[in-house]
Amino acid sequence: MKIIYKDGTTGECPQEQELHVIRHTAAHILAQAVKNLYRNAHFAYGPATENGFYYDVDLGDVKLNDADLAKIEAEMNKIVKSNLPIKAFTLPRNEAIALMQERGEIYKVEHIGDLGEDEVISFYQQGDYIDMCVGPHLCYTKALKAFKLTQVSGAYWKNDRNNKMLTRINGTAFATKDELTAHMTALEEARKRDHNKLGRELEYFTTVDSIGQGLPILLPKGARVIQLLQRWVEDEEQKRGYLLTKTPLMAKRDLYRISGHWDHYLDGMFILGDPNDEEKECFALRPMTCPFQYQVYLNRMRSYRDLPMRLGETSTLFRNEDSGEMHGLIRVRQFTISEGHLVLRPDQLEEEFAGCLSLAKYMLETVGLAEDVSYRFSQWDPANTAKYEGTAEQWEEAQSLMEKILNKLEVPYSVGIDEAAFYGPKLDIQIKNVFGKEDTLITIQIDMLLAKKFGMEYVDADGQKKMPYIIHRTTLGCYERTLALLIEKYAGALPTWMAPTQVKILTVTEKGDEWAREVERELFSRGMRVELDLRNEKIGFKIRQAQQEKVPYMIVIGGQEAEDKMVAVRNRKEGDLGKMTLAELVDKLEEEIRTKAH
Amino acid sequence: MKIIYKDGTTGECPQEQELHVIRHTAAHILAQAVKNLYRNAHFAYGPATENGFYYDVDLGDVKLNDADLAKIEAEMNKIVKSNLPIKAFTLPRNEAIALMQERGEIYKVEHIGDLGEDEVISFYQQGDYIDMCVGPHLCYTKALKAFKLTQVSGAYWKNDRNNKMLTRINGTAFATKDELTAHMTALEEARKRDHNKLGRELEYFTTVDSIGQGLPILLPKGARVIQLLQRWVEDEEQKRGYLLTKTPLMAKRDLYRISGHWDHYLDGMFILGDPNDEEKECFALRPMTCPFQYQVYLNRMRSYRDLPMRLGETSTLFRNEDSGEMHGLIRVRQFTISEGHLVLRPDQLEEEFAGCLSLAKYMLETVGLAEDVSYRFSQWDPANTAKYEGTAEQWEEAQSLMEKILNKLEVPYSVGIDEAAFYGPKLDIQIKNVFGKEDTLITIQIDMLLAKKFGMEYVDADGQKKMPYIIHRTTLGCYERTLALLIEKYAGALPTWMAPTQVKILTVTEKGDEWAREVERELFSRGMRVELDLRNEKIGFKIRQAQQEKVPYMIVIGGQEAEDKMVAVRNRKEGDLGKMTLAELVDKLEEEIRTKAH
Repeated sequence: MKIIYKDGTTGECPQEQELHVIRHTAAHILAQAVKNLYRNAHFAYGPATENGFYYDVDLGDVKLNDADLAKIEAEMNKIVKSNLPIKAFTLPRNEAIALMQERGEIYKVEHIGDLGEDEVISFYQQGDYIDMCVGPHLCYTKALKAFKLTQVSGAYWKNDRNNKMLTRINGTAFATKDELTAHMTALEEARKRDHNKLGRELEYFTTVDSIGQGLPILLPKGARVIQLLQRWVEDEEQKRGYLLTKTPLMAKRDLYRISGHWDHYLDGMFILGDPNDEEKECFALRPMTCPFQYQVYLNRMRSYRDLPMRLGETSTLFRNEDSGEMHGLIRVRQFTISEGHLVLRPDQLEEEFAGCLSLAKYMLETVGLAEDVSYRFSQWDPANTAKYEGTAEQWEEAQSLMEKILNKLEVPYSVGIDEAAFYGPKLDIQIKNVFGKEDTLITIQIDMLLAKKFGMEYVDADGQKKMPYIIHRTTLGCYERTLALLIEKYAGALPTWMAPTQVKILTVTEKGDEWAREVERELFSRGMRVELDLRNEKIGFKIRQAQQEKVPYMIVIGGQEAEDKMVAVRNRKEGDLGKMTLAELVDKLEEEIRTKAH
Repeated sequence: MKIIYKDGTTGECPQEQELHVIRHTAAHILAQAVKNLYRNAHFAYGPATENGFYYDVDLGDVKLNDADLAKIEAEMNKIVKSNLPIKAFTLPRNEAIALMQERGEIYKVEHIGDLGEDEVISFYQQGDYIDMCVGPHLCYTKALKAFKLTQVSGAYWKNDRNNKMLTRINGTAFATKDELTAHMTALEEARKRDHNKLGRELEYFTTVDSIGQGLPILLPKGARVIQLLQRWVEDEEQKRGYLLTKTPLMAKRDLYRISGHWDHYLDGMFILGDPNDEEKECFALRPMTCPFQYQVYLNRMRSYRDLPMRLGETSTLFRNEDSGEMHGLIRVRQFTISEGHLVLRPDQLEEEFAGCLSLAKYMLETVGLAEDVSYRFSQWDPANTAKYEGTAEQWEEAQSLMEKILNKLEVPYSVGIDEAAFYGPKLDIQIKNVFGKEDTLITIQIDMLLAKKFGMEYVDADGQKKMPYIIHRTTLGCYERTLALLIEKYAGALPTWMAPTQVKILTVTEKGDEWAREVERELFSRGMRVELDLRNEKIGFKIRQAQQEKVPYMIVIGGQEAEDKMVAVRNRKEGDLGKMTLAELVDKLEEEIRTKAH
């Protein structure tokens, strides 16, 4: 595949860059098509992404619908067919500004203004369309062989909610039509697993306009799964020597001033009162648990014998996410997380870090997500110091300490620059949702800064007061997000131990009712989550419905089963398992639940 | 005991009024003493109360301390000794205003302004002190035989936080010195049980200035007790057919407009954003769960077969209490409550109400608070309709329905006028703290109004859409408050089943260490909450400390016990229980925990 670089030279495209170049050229062709159809369009950014490409466009008051998208796609096809050559040229800064101004590209002008004074700016052109770009690109429009526009959404200019909301046109492109078709089919499959659709259909959660975006209502099924995950995490933490805390969900701004959140995280917080009025009380909902849980440590002077102190909390947090960022249960404004802090002597850091990682891995393996995660060592950005507390020396020290530990524990990590917390580096355990969007599920962080801010100390064996290290960590991350990923992983068919309804008892005729009730009582008394369907409906209909609800086990009871005191058992995956005694069924279910099989 | 009425006649005091008259006269003598010492004092209200009396005074910039209180008490004693006669007289309204204006009593003038135009105002006078009052009073100051000033606090004029903060001087008085002494001794005892002192000393909770008042931090002991109460409540509700929900802690103002909270409860809510700016999003933290949990019902159309639908939630709520109202864990700004709503057909109301009451009684009996509660039938006030939703007819219907149910269930209730929720009447289960202050612990409410506001319906057997009844109820009330009352009830020595630490293992010498660890492992593996004290300290010291921490069981292990594989057991109340095998100990503890003995 031949491509053209910004200096006008051409060459063969390195294999690993092919998709990126194809998609980037697709974005330019998209822009040209939009310009042909909407003469007043102004273009912002239009990059290739992991799964496709998009272009953010200012269309004034125009709102695009599906029919418009089809029209734009048709226009793109015309441009491809006409096989325009794609050329590159460069201009000095002031001429580049003049060109973009002349063409009405106000966002590009602003963009050039952000670049260095001496910058030489490169452009690509096909037909009458010119875009500022560093390339490389395909050499002819016909080289774009397989693309599709997928959806329209909104995005703020420069991703800043104080700026104008632009129209984001999303699409994808591949080297061949077959690859595109395969991708679209996979996407269709992903949509079937999408927790934001399936989770609502299966009645795990819902949202309502009068409450607001990013504030999901967990219906009985979702609430039950979160309850049992939460209890399991709390119990596992207790076994591992954690102390449980329950700290307030809000505090006066004074606390966040000490912690640094007021300086580094104000935009992400919900404020109660006027943050600029110093005369009146001003509270904020907490975005993190740290400064609250530290008060537990600070309740009295601690000795070196008290350390490590492992504090855990089922903690509700609030983050003022942009409305464009919100997604189902994965990105929300209020969530509950298994958050905790370990206060340590320096000599305990390595062992305790390993303990946190081992707990996280145990959790991931048990719920069945271990194979889907990757590890990111999130570091600060020395070029962006305003975002962070502390000095370069302190960051180097914390990061090199963490690097040593990660290497020793043989964690297969990648590095994420500018992804650290404002107070320290993190090991982020990352996971992708069905659409390939990556989020952090679990995090383990080393903090050498906040203890000082809060005056946290311990009296060492030598009688001296010293400052502890702190690990910030989560056990299973945020329960709403975990539930979403589990729904997607299992396409709604959660393993029996965590299924909101484990067994559904279906009667064939009224003759089965009494025995069905007895079976229900027995399973219920053993702590199983059972539902009884005594309706006067055909058994096939009842089975289909239970199957749609993804209930792991269906017990079919007709007159014969009632007479024999037997149960006919169906599994949602394996189908008919035949007749067995109630005791046999109980043994089977209890074993499956006890071992948390998946 | 002779008393003087406002018309100047005298008579014998009815026995049941004696304490009230004594305390009311004490309040007047207090005011006279204050006026003697602080010439610029202006008096607001000065009533007798259940446990004593107080007077709210505007002292300008003067702040009273304990020494001032002693000085005022000495001045009161002088007034008593001088045995001034106490006289009554009346004045027409305008003359009453003139008199109070002349004496600089600006609050009394405002008070008269609130009274009817034709009102004849009565006054009482002793020496040069005149107070507006309806009496009756003692006839001579010397008839006040036993009183004591107890503390200084603050209170808003007319209890409205927009008004000036006044100085409240509190005291108590009795008919005899012996009765006063007995009361003060009881108060001293109460202080020892006061959860706000004991709960901090035993490290159940704390508060810190930078977080704020009414936002307690539950330390590991408090968090653990609340965790186990919460799980017990959730499990008991599940057994009784409740469905668990988990709904958001905040919502847009739109939701509260529908529910009526925006009209009737705005002052009690924490607002995020400007409530008067309709252009921007405005959220509020929830003060109640109702409008959130209703969304679960509303998730799809319900049939008469789906009812009763019993929804339960471990729900965190926020109420913007005045700072003067806050008290320890009993009155706070954020709390967690076992809140739930039962959506019913009319024919199910009585049975479900009885079910709620039976659940509440089971809870109270199990935690040991049943003997301490009283029942209040809280009704609306037809003279204060602005506070309530709905018509007089709707209120009469709901209240007479509730009265019938309460009588049938033989609930021994008193009536509280103007104590209803804004949407319906309540059965409040009331409890007093160690100082005699009464609060609601559990509530069961009938609501015939909100279902309509939210468009909640069900399809009845006849195919018609109908409106359900709703019961709002709590199972064990608010966990923070319950914990406070349990600490006070048991003076910190919580029953074994709910004690944060159930067993403390104390070694006499190092020879016991290994066996002590084995005992710890065994008890821990059985889910018991165990601590190990291996410190190199005298056993007497270790026992004293465990006793102070109110740990139910102490296991003393010395060289002999280690050799014999036995345990020497002490109970915090019964003392030494002698030696036993570990198996015997486990049996004893498991039985005590299983039966939730108290």
